[in-house]
Formats: sequence, C-alpha cells, structure tokens
Amino acid sequence: MLAPSDGAYCNTSHGPKRMVILVPTNACAYNAAMLVEDIGEFDLINVLVGSIAARNERLESDLESVGACLDLGIGDDAASWSLAGDVVATTDTMVDGVHFVADQIGWSDLGYKAMATNQSDIAAMGCLPTFALITLGLRGDLSVESLKQMYSGMADACEQSGGVIAGGDIVKSPVFFVTVALEGMTAGAGRLMRRDTAEPGDLIGVTGHLGCSGGGLRLLMDGGCATDEERSHLTSAHWRPTPRVSEGAALQTIGVRSAMDVSDGLLDDLGKLCKASGVGATLRADDIPADDTLRSAFPDDWLSLALGGGEDYELVFTAPPQIMERAVRELETPVSVIGVVQDGRPSVEVLDEAGAPITIASGGWDHFSRPA
Amino acid sequence: MLAPSDGAYCNTSHGPKRMVILVPTNACAYNAAMLVEDIGEFDLINVLVGSIAARNERLESDLESVGACLDLGIGDDAASWSLAGDVVATTDTMVDGVHFVADQIGWSDLGYKAMATNQSDIAAMGCLPTFALITLGLRGDLSVESLKQMYSGMADACEQSGGVIAGGDIVKSPVFFVTVALEGMTAGAGRLMRRDTAEPGDLIGVTGHLGCSGGGLRLLMDGGCATDEERSHLTSAHWRPTPRVSEGAALQTIGVRSAMDVSDGLLDDLGKLCKASGVGATLRADDIPADDTLRSAFPDDWLSLALGGGEDYELVFTAPPQIMERAVRELETPVSVIGVVQDGRPSVEVLDEAGAPITIASGGWDHFSRPA
Repeated sequence: MLAPSDGAYCNTSHGPKRMVILVPTNACAYNAAMLVEDIGEFDLINVLVGSIAARNERLESDLESVGACLDLGIGDDAASWSLAGDVVATTDTMVDGVHFVADQIGWSDLGYKAMATNQSDIAAMGCLPTFALITLGLRGDLSVESLKQMYSGMADACEQSGGVIAGGDIVKSPVFFVTVALEGMTAGAGRLMRRDTAEPGDLIGVTGHLGCSGGGLRLLMDGGCATDEERSHLTSAHWRPTPRVSEGAALQTIGVRSAMDVSDGLLDDLGKLCKASGVGATLRADDIPADDTLRSAFPDDWLSLALGGGEDYELVFTAPPQIMERAVRELETPVSVIGVVQDGRPSVEVLDEAGAPITIASGGWDHFSRPA
Repeated sequence: MLAPSDGAYCNTSHGPKRMVILVPTNACAYNAAMLVEDIGEFDLINVLVGSIAARNERLESDLESVGACLDLGIGDDAASWSLAGDVVATTDTMVDGVHFVADQIGWSDLGYKAMATNQSDIAAMGCLPTFALITLGLRGDLSVESLKQMYSGMADACEQSGGVIAGGDIVKSPVFFVTVALEGMTAGAGRLMRRDTAEPGDLIGVTGHLGCSGGGLRLLMDGGCATDEERSHLTSAHWRPTPRVSEGAALQTIGVRSAMDVSDGLLDDLGKLCKASGVGATLRADDIPADDTLRSAFPDDWLSLALGGGEDYELVFTAPPQIMERAVRELETPVSVIGVVQDGRPSVEVLDEAGAPITIASGGWDHFSRPA
C-alpha cells in the first residue's frame, strides 16, 4: 500500500548505521527541480497525495451520495471502504516505451489516460467507478513535478468520470510504469453487461465516433499532413478519450446485456465478444461512425482507422431490436447501429454497399509477437 | 483486465495486413520450452488461468462459506463480486532486480511471496483476503513454464491464507514485474486495526519470531557460515513467510485496535505506527523474540536482524494491558510483549538490561536514495 515499500533486498546489510532512536522525518520542502531520488519514498507519497487532496475530498463526497464510502484512505496497510452495490474491479498498466513514450506524452495526459482506460472498463460493465489503487514503478531520475502533473491528470479523469484514489504502492523500477486497479459498483438494479451474452438476431450498436484516436496516434508517430484543427482534434481524442460511464449506466438500465469498450480496435474487440458469446457478426461499412475530421485528414484510411485503430474507448454493444431502438432514442451521445449478430462460428465480417465482404488493413496487435 | 491488453502504440500502422474476417485462435498447444513471445497474450492467459483453475474453484467455494461470492471472473472487461462485510484493499509490486533477482528466486516462491506480502497487509487490518487482481509486466523471452510455476506459488499462498485470483492484466515490459492488488473483508463485527490508534500506556506485542527472514537474506546475499539446517530454516523464512491472517482476525476480535505487519523491519515499521498515532515507543532488547536458529547462525547480529531485518511478516500491535494479556493467552501463535507506548514525540527507543538506550545497526532502506 502507499506507505514505504516492503522492499526485499533492502535491509540491514545495506542500510546506513544509525542510532536506534528513529524520528520519522516530515515531508521535506518541495521544489520543482526535485527528483524522486532526492525526496525519498515517504515524502514523495506525501507530496503526491497532498497535491490532489482537496480534489480527492470533493470526489469522496460525490461517491458518498451514491452509497460508496471511503472509511480509511492512504497511509495504512490497506484502504477500506463500503459500497451499496456489488463490486466490479479491473486493472490496466502502461509501461514506458511500450504503451507510451515518456518524452512524448504530457505527464498530465499520461495520468488522465491511465485512469480513463480503467474507467472505460468499468463503464463497459454498466457500472460507476469508485476507488482506485495506484502503483508507480519509478526511476530515481524522474522529477517529482512530473509525477505531480501525472496525479493531476488522474484527478482530472476522476472529476470527469468518477472515482477516488484510495491507496497504492510506489516502488523503484529501472523502467517507469503506472498501474491503476479500479473498482466500481453496479449502477442500477439490472444485470452487468458482459461479453458472453450476445445472441443471434441482436443488433450491434456503438457510441460516438471511431478512429479519431488511431488517427491522432498516426499523426503523432508518422507526422503526416493535417491542418492544425484536424491535428488538435485527433491528437486530443488520442490523449484524452472520454470513458463512456454515463452511457454505460444508461445502456445497462434500459436492458442491454452484452457490451465491451473499444480499446484494441472495433474488429478486434468485437471478435472477442463474438468468441465469448459463441456467435458471429456482420457489419456494414457504410454505417461505421467516423467523423468529418477523420474523413478529411485520412481520406483513404478513415475506414481502416475506424475499424482497427483502437483506443477510442467507445462502447460496442448488442441488443434485441426494440432495446437497441431505445438506446438510439434515449442516449444523449449518438448511437450508431452498425450490424447484426449471426448464428455460427465466431468471426466478424464487414460488407460493402453491395453486400460483398471487404478487406481492410486492420487488426489487433499482440505486443508479445516477434517481428516476422 | 485479463484480456488482450489495451496497448497504445499498437494499432493499424504496425499491424500485419490481414483479412477482415477475424477468427480468434484457440489456446495453442502448450509445451514446456515455449516462451511468452511464442504464445501470444490471449493464449498465455488461457494457459496460466487453466493451470490453477481447479484450485481456484475450490478457493472460491471456501470464500462463499464466509459470504464472499465471485460473480464474474477472468475474461471480461472487469471482474465482479459481492461481500458480506466492508472492503479492505491493498497492492504490492515486486520488480526484477529491485525486489528479487529472477535468476536466484524460484518461480514458485516468487509467486507465493508476491501474494503473501499482500495477504499480510490484509491480515494487519484484522481482515480476511478475498479477491486478487494480478498484473504481469513480461519480457518476451520468459518461459511460459516459469510463469505457470509462479501462478502455482500464488495458488499455494491462497490455499494457505485465503483469496482467489479474479482477474488482472498482462503487458509487455522490458523489466519483469508482478503486481498483486488484493481485497479483503472485515472478519468480525469489530473495528479495523489501524496505525493511528496506538495510545500511551498501551503495551506493544509481536507475533512469532523476528529476524529469520533477514538472516536468510543475508545468507543468500553474502554466503556466510551456517549449518545446512540453519540455512534451510532461515532461507525458507525468507522465501515463504506465513502471513498472520488468523492471528490478525483473532487480535481484531479480542479488541486490538492498532497493528501493522513487519515488512520493513520492526524499528522502521513501529516508527511509522508511532508517527501515525503521534506517540513514542520504548522496547526492551531482552524481550525481542528471536529463535534459537537465528541466535546460533548470527551470534553477534541476531538482535540487529530481529530489529531491522524486515520481511518477517509478523504482526506488531499495541493494546491496553488487559487486552494484551488476552492476546498472549488466547492466540495459538506465541505473542511476545516487547515494550510500551509513551506519550511524546514519535520515536522508537531500545533499552538494554540496565535500562540504557542502545545503538544497533539497523534501519529501513529507501530504494530511491542515491548512494552516499
């Protein structure tokens, strides 16, 4: 937990000789140029936690109003809370050089995104984010100011979509990583939205627009031609996606039973949903929602980005026609009906205007695969 | 969550071209020489989860008998469960080269210890472990067999002290790390045991013996003279500490309100408890519990190891004399009364037989400090 770490290999044989009279230090004076290795673990925790304390307190009150009470926060062996509903829990990790490049991403955006990806998992179950544990694997040469900005980004995400930082762990690591474990609670009386409950005949819906995040990533990685306006729209879709928390809760309330979030790309994620449910899916390319900015910045690739780009954190879901009709009518966020669930072997097929299957450059990416 | 990762930088521009008809693969045939990069994320999850499925199922039944039900396990965006009591939650991370050396520790011991350190945090609150989320940061050249052994060690710890693996995340990382986020539930009707509730006049107790883990670590690091029997006793105390779960629940039940686990060394951890409670502590060196093996293997250093060695995962706690007396009498595990809580500034003092303060080579270790 957020308290000086239970480090192995860290004991008497390495420690400085000192008097047995231990007087724990107070948080040292903080300055902007301070590095992690200057400040020490205990004081670092105090600085980071202190930097968002007032915001965390307001977020705690918000949660109390829906029946989630933090009884014991940061500073003990464990945090403690109570919930009015059942618990859901997820965790996601971002590793420097694998999921982001520390020199390229803004620290605040990194914190925002680390929290938002987890909130999106909670939203995909139709639930509300509650309590988060944050694990930081830190190099000593990181600046404390950067980490404060990262915490600020996490608080931004919590203010936008819910949740409170309740604890965590800080460890030394030669590679910087951040892990968020986030709990949530059921929002209404209904059942969770799951991956394994899609049924033949269900229509397939998706919230918002797809592909902007992938387009933004491509601009960031490859440069590419785009107006300032396009670049700003697409890169901010990549760095600051909006988890669909209220949409997830609304879908759950009107009776949607099968959903997931679009993190690895629509085709890849819908493929997982189909596999879990033992069904197939047919999509109509014309109905895939891509916004005008994506289409104008990527006139040749927009469909590929919308189908495979990933990290949009929209919700893809399936429901019988009458429930899908309510979703389209009642959600404030636009819902596009993009296809239908089929009987048969798990697969996702995309059809053109004439009803012929089309081939798209797309697909999920397995980090562990060796280059061909 | 445990499902192909939400990898950033993993999208269309890098992926292989392929047909849009996606047919998820089944778990590939597993062989012992297989590496992480051979098997892919999805199949790796299936192999690891499958390797402990039967044990996990029995552990789930155990939890149901105390009112903790896993409603949805590994395979969706989030896991879901319900609890009869309030929630406590903690997380701890172990990083290769910082908290262990992958070539030196057995994989099964590594898994055991990653889980046990978290169980110990839950025990220190007087609670029972329930549901765990496991995050693995993996290099591609790790063998799948090693990871299966690590999972087996985690299941060992769950069988010994409680808990079920309910989900997690697997990501690529240039440095191998494992993070466990563990929930627990309150064991009885009483209050949690916390760090900030010690009061002047409380006696200070500790379960079991201290220093064996630190002694084992020193033998592993420095070699050193010890009989085979001593070496076996001390190194297994280091690799396979027993979280004091039943002892924590018993202490909470008889009314102990202030406790923590000894992970960073008695002086260091008790110093944190004193700081949180705004009190001091005086210990008697003669009463520090060190077993005969530690004394014979380290005739000069046993007290230093017992006071500062850390990673024993015993419980240190404070209570008024009449409650301490019940703890000594009622716990099956030996309880030693080692000192008293004092009014005044947070500090920990150790006195010799004559009542004079003594100086010991000891002290917690801050991973982030630069070498002097």
